[in-house]
Amino acid sequence: MEILDGKATSAKIKEELAREVTALKASGGKMPHLAAILVGNNGASETYVGAKVKACEKLGFNSSLLRFEESISEADLLAEIEKLNQDDDIDGFIVQLPLPKHIDEMKVTLAVDPAKDVDGFHPENVGRMSIGLETFIPATPFGILNLLKEYKVETEGKHCVVMGRSNIVGTPMSILMSRNSYPGNCTVTMVHSRTKNIKEICQDADILIVALGRAEMVDASYVKEGAVIVDVGITRIADDTKKSGFRLAGDVNFEAVKDKCSFITPVPGGVGPMTITGLMMNTLQAAKRKA
Amino acid sequence: MEILDGKATSAKIKEELAREVTALKASGGKMPHLAAILVGNNGASETYVGAKVKACEKLGFNSSLLRFEESISEADLLAEIEKLNQDDDIDGFIVQLPLPKHIDEMKVTLAVDPAKDVDGFHPENVGRMSIGLETFIPATPFGILNLLKEYKVETEGKHCVVMGRSNIVGTPMSILMSRNSYPGNCTVTMVHSRTKNIKEICQDADILIVALGRAEMVDASYVKEGAVIVDVGITRIADDTKKSGFRLAGDVNFEAVKDKCSFITPVPGGVGPMTITGLMMNTLQAAKRKA
Repeated sequence: MEILDGKATSAKIKEELAREVTALKASGGKMPHLAAILVGNNGASETYVGAKVKACEKLGFNSSLLRFEESISEADLLAEIEKLNQDDDIDGFIVQLPLPKHIDEMKVTLAVDPAKDVDGFHPENVGRMSIGLETFIPATPFGILNLLKEYKVETEGKHCVVMGRSNIVGTPMSILMSRNSYPGNCTVTMVHSRTKNIKEICQDADILIVALGRAEMVDASYVKEGAVIVDVGITRIADDTKKSGFRLAGDVNFEAVKDKCSFITPVPGGVGPMTITGLMMNTLQAAKRKA
Repeated sequence: MEILDGKATSAKIKEELAREVTALKASGGKMPHLAAILVGNNGASETYVGAKVKACEKLGFNSSLLRFEESISEADLLAEIEKLNQDDDIDGFIVQLPLPKHIDEMKVTLAVDPAKDVDGFHPENVGRMSIGLETFIPATPFGILNLLKEYKVETEGKHCVVMGRSNIVGTPMSILMSRNSYPGNCTVTMVHSRTKNIKEICQDADILIVALGRAEMVDASYVKEGAVIVDVGITRIADDTKKSGFRLAGDVNFEAVKDKCSFITPVPGGVGPMTITGLMMNTLQAAKRKA
């Protein structure tokens, strides 16, 4: 079994990005500028946004963190988004999800200028991805593709099973893995809550991409000998032996499957860092397109 | 075995559409107006466009057929599209594919105003479909959904295998059938030219949607007992016993599978008429949205 090391791969890609930024600076170009909107005080959201801002700083990108109270109205949030759309200095921005219940996330997604939509959530970008045009691929699927590429994982003609059908991970992942490209050219099956025989289907997967958000649900009985496992899940589980009081768990029971698969992403250190790097790649691309 | 009768279902839907048009007229509303661009003299394209124009007339829609020589330049064609985008009287329009080789079909697709894109090919509409927003669903997948609905074919939890990954049929079909809706909630597998064990996968399909463009490729060995078969293919095959010199064949060998399946679309008279009706539904929707 080989670890699909997201931390190491991410570090390697970031070095390339940093070199591009240095060259950009040397030629008198403007630094890429990512803005992030954070509403309220959700702990996990704080962590994610913090990691994104930190990644920007390390790469020499400019970053802006815009914080708003949990009580901000939908209209006011949409007005803030419009300001970012109009701000020439901002190359790309994200609105950290989830948002408070009184705000319609779809309206927010639709309000972002597709040219600055580095999360790749706007329908125009989703559609461009679906028909194979240049676009911002959503950060998590983009990160997974880059990880598979780094380890030269064979994909053509393989059966890829995607667990979960979210707009952010499962659905785009299933589209990307079936496209005529590398990584891609898989036979893709997407399974979800209404699928009857999930386990049997997973047992046939050469590549298993798990994005369910259910801690350690996938054990060895789901896994074919020699399968490639990509674990998108990340959940905090109470653990008294840890100073923090919790440990991080994926959707896959790593210990239970590690001797059965050929490649696997660890949690943490697998898909997580690749997601942030995917966002950085999209931001640099946005800045280059604008220039 | 029961026939999924596209001709009869299409006639029924068209009656409803005609009633809506009559009501629209009575209330002093403007008639829906569909324009179609036809470049060159491809025989099949002439037939398809002719059928679309005829369907408009029967429903009381206005229609315009714009014909251009095979030699029209890309720039001139794009200018014609822009005219239609700007023409307030046109509610929706289509550009019949394929186009001559010197014209980039993707540029043409991107040039159509998404609000008038009743073929649903523009990335903005593809993306809206993918994330479950109201949109123009491409006519063939839309027609298939309506046919499954008419016959109350059960889809939830079923294994749907889509053969073919085109932007026009296979890919949107696979997205739609996996969505949390009816028809939908299927476990979907999309197979294509790089899939290794196509036959085995098809043998597991509860619902088999075939969009390969390979005449009568699917025989009984691909079909599970009791499966639902939707045949999107339509190919002319030389046949001396016919006055026309040809017969129309689907991608499925109808005679070979008809006793094995629970439902099947005939060719012709299955998906074809439903596709045209899907286009008419989109056109009426475009007109209503504008009003």
